Amino acid sequence: MRDVCVIGIGQTPIGELWDLSLRQLAAAALQQAAADAGIERVDALYVGNMLAPRLSNQAHLGALVADYAGWRGIEAVTVEAACASGGAAFQAAVRAVASGAVTIAAVCGVEKMTDATTGPTTSALATAADADFEGAHGASFVALNALIMQRYMYEYRVPHDAFAPFSINAHQNALNNPNAMFHRPLTLDDYRRAPVIADPINLYDSSPICDGAAAAILCPLELARDLSASPPVRVLASVTATDSLALADRHDLLALDAARQSAQRAYAQARVSPADIDVFEVHDAFTIMAALSLEAAGFAERGQGTRLALDGDIAPSGRVPISTMGGLKGRGHPVGATGVYELVDVITQLRGAAGPNQVPGAAVGMTQNIGGTGSTVVTHILAREQ
Amino acid sequence: MRDVCVIGIGQTPIGELWDLSLRQLAAAALQQAAADAGIERVDALYVGNMLAPRLSNQAHLGALVADYAGWRGIEAVTVEAACASGGAAFQAAVRAVASGAVTIAAVCGVEKMTDATTGPTTSALATAADADFEGAHGASFVALNALIMQRYMYEYRVPHDAFAPFSINAHQNALNNPNAMFHRPLTLDDYRRAPVIADPINLYDSSPICDGAAAAILCPLELARDLSASPPVRVLASVTATDSLALADRHDLLALDAARQSAQRAYAQARVSPADIDVFEVHDAFTIMAALSLEAAGFAERGQGTRLALDGDIAPSGRVPISTMGGLKGRGHPVGATGVYELVDVITQLRGAAGPNQVPGAAVGMTQNIGGTGSTVVTHILAREQ
Repeated sequence: MRDVCVIGIGQTPIGELWDLSLRQLAAAALQQAAADAGIERVDALYVGNMLAPRLSNQAHLGALVADYAGWRGIEAVTVEAACASGGAAFQAAVRAVASGAVTIAAVCGVEKMTDATTGPTTSALATAADADFEGAHGASFVALNALIMQRYMYEYRVPHDAFAPFSINAHQNALNNPNAMFHRPLTLDDYRRAPVIADPINLYDSSPICDGAAAAILCPLELARDLSASPPVRVLASVTATDSLALADRHDLLALDAARQSAQRAYAQARVSPADIDVFEVHDAFTIMAALSLEAAGFAERGQGTRLALDGDIAPSGRVPISTMGGLKGRGHPVGATGVYELVDVITQLRGAAGPNQVPGAAVGMTQNIGGTGSTVVTHILAREQ
Repeated sequence: MRDVCVIGIGQTPIGELWDLSLRQLAAAALQQAAADAGIERVDALYVGNMLAPRLSNQAHLGALVADYAGWRGIEAVTVEAACASGGAAFQAAVRAVASGAVTIAAVCGVEKMTDATTGPTTSALATAADADFEGAHGASFVALNALIMQRYMYEYRVPHDAFAPFSINAHQNALNNPNAMFHRPLTLDDYRRAPVIADPINLYDSSPICDGAAAAILCPLELARDLSASPPVRVLASVTATDSLALADRHDLLALDAARQSAQRAYAQARVSPADIDVFEVHDAFTIMAALSLEAAGFAERGQGTRLALDGDIAPSGRVPISTMGGLKGRGHPVGATGVYELVDVITQLRGAAGPNQVPGAAVGMTQNIGGTGSTVVTHILAREQ
């Protein structure tokens, strides 16, 4: 298996981008990534997307985006795993390069959630859950997360306020990210006064509906130094694990088994432990997911995830910096693109290019991209090449 | 890059399967494939599917199917490239095993086109085309293929009758395939009297809307003999190429560039020529696609594809046997599953297990799985291990 490096990254700002279509968003991120890598053509493209067939009447994004990015003819497909689509597409690129079949691979996560032509975005997002046993009964995605959060608060006797620091940290970090959707600091008072969406999840527990695209260029380690002006970042581990879609089928509602398995196998693959991770881009689609992901990945004991946040450990200067460029809450969560945004953020940190949000001396970074209520979890560990 | 073999195959009958859900179809095919391979668990699953998010309100099939097949926890994602989703999912499995990251991989192509809950199947199929420049203007998928067929008949002065042998051969071969949707021989008279769907495409130029699932189990060559009771079949080439989605963007409407590139690179990878291919499972979603695919893959000169059919060369006993188990026309075309059905059919031939339809001495086989109007083409070449 060849070692694989990332040599280029790109992203569009995240927001309600009414004047940019799906293909325009994707091409913008890819062209930026290709320029960053100093290359003009790639051999293959893996697109992470979840909602285009529902919201834009458009499947078949691989060929569409390849063509519009100026690469007609290349191998190109879409990889889908609900909100973990971006991370899964990145893994497909890693595999293609590692196998030797592809030399230069591009990944693009893209999602257009506003400008929905064929029905409400909430119904489309519910396709991440079990259609027969959850969706058909009217369970929206936020409602399912609310069930988990309710159980967490009851089981561990954690008050709602304990989740506020996740959102406050995310919004604080987003202030310094020009590509973030929100540039507005959040206070505990704001959090307390926010309207409830699905009790106990309120507006500030939730990431926004938005548009955006992020991209990366990958190649074998031995080519990375020749091709790229930026310091290459090596992929140390790439692991996907799954769980049931339906919450009712879980052995333990609060365990996030797939996240635990995915992280443990990634640590083994990369030969590191949680203590070696300098920056962790967590899937904070809801504050409860941030807490559970931190616990499942071994950064906190069960029921102690919010403790970490309360103690200030999650800031860029803390022990376990998360959501360092704003996370899903502050930067935004264009669902199929998010996994690639997480990777772009970690790579920015590992390059030492995160500006005021730079984690000092960041050498090893991790991302955890979650699809459904923890049903697919893709974990990546990356390191700056010396 | 490790050599990869197929050690197990499975399939459900194709038809209007009102009593079987998406997950039940997928699990049935996978369990049959696993039993055929003599294994109980796989390390990863790649699901080929196009329409579930539209027609069944269900995305996220990777985790869903993995769980229902009894493999909760494993790596699992969906790969989508319109009607080439099955072939693309197979390629993902090949890459995963070739890279060394995965030892035993499962592929499942699954589609449930009947029992559509959220709108007409025709609209969902149109998402394979360019939504902004074709779909939004009302172009259905059969209408786009009709434009190509019209142009072909005009340019090469080919009468409509010349396409009949493709359908007659497909229906003839389907008679001996218990899993085929149709068991009814077709005559030239039937073909001539068929109702027109989109001129010049008539009912018998078109493959049916249907449900079905097919599966395969892959592992490294060095494990194949130990694990499997059936003769292993080696993957000699796995190549995807793309073209524009919109027909108006093509340089040449009749060239099927992606099919040509995909086939040529596959021949180079496998170190074979068209003359070495004993059986070719062609993507006969419409008779025009069979003709163009034969030409693009080098089995006929441009404009001569129908000649091959008229001369009887496409029968199991002919020079270029195609659609040997019924093809998309006779066996059926559950779109995202079709690429895997094509592979299962070729592997059945290479195992010498095709019964009355056996191509004598079949040692090397090829599949060409087409998404959109030739926008994504996945070519595989396989060979019986000696």
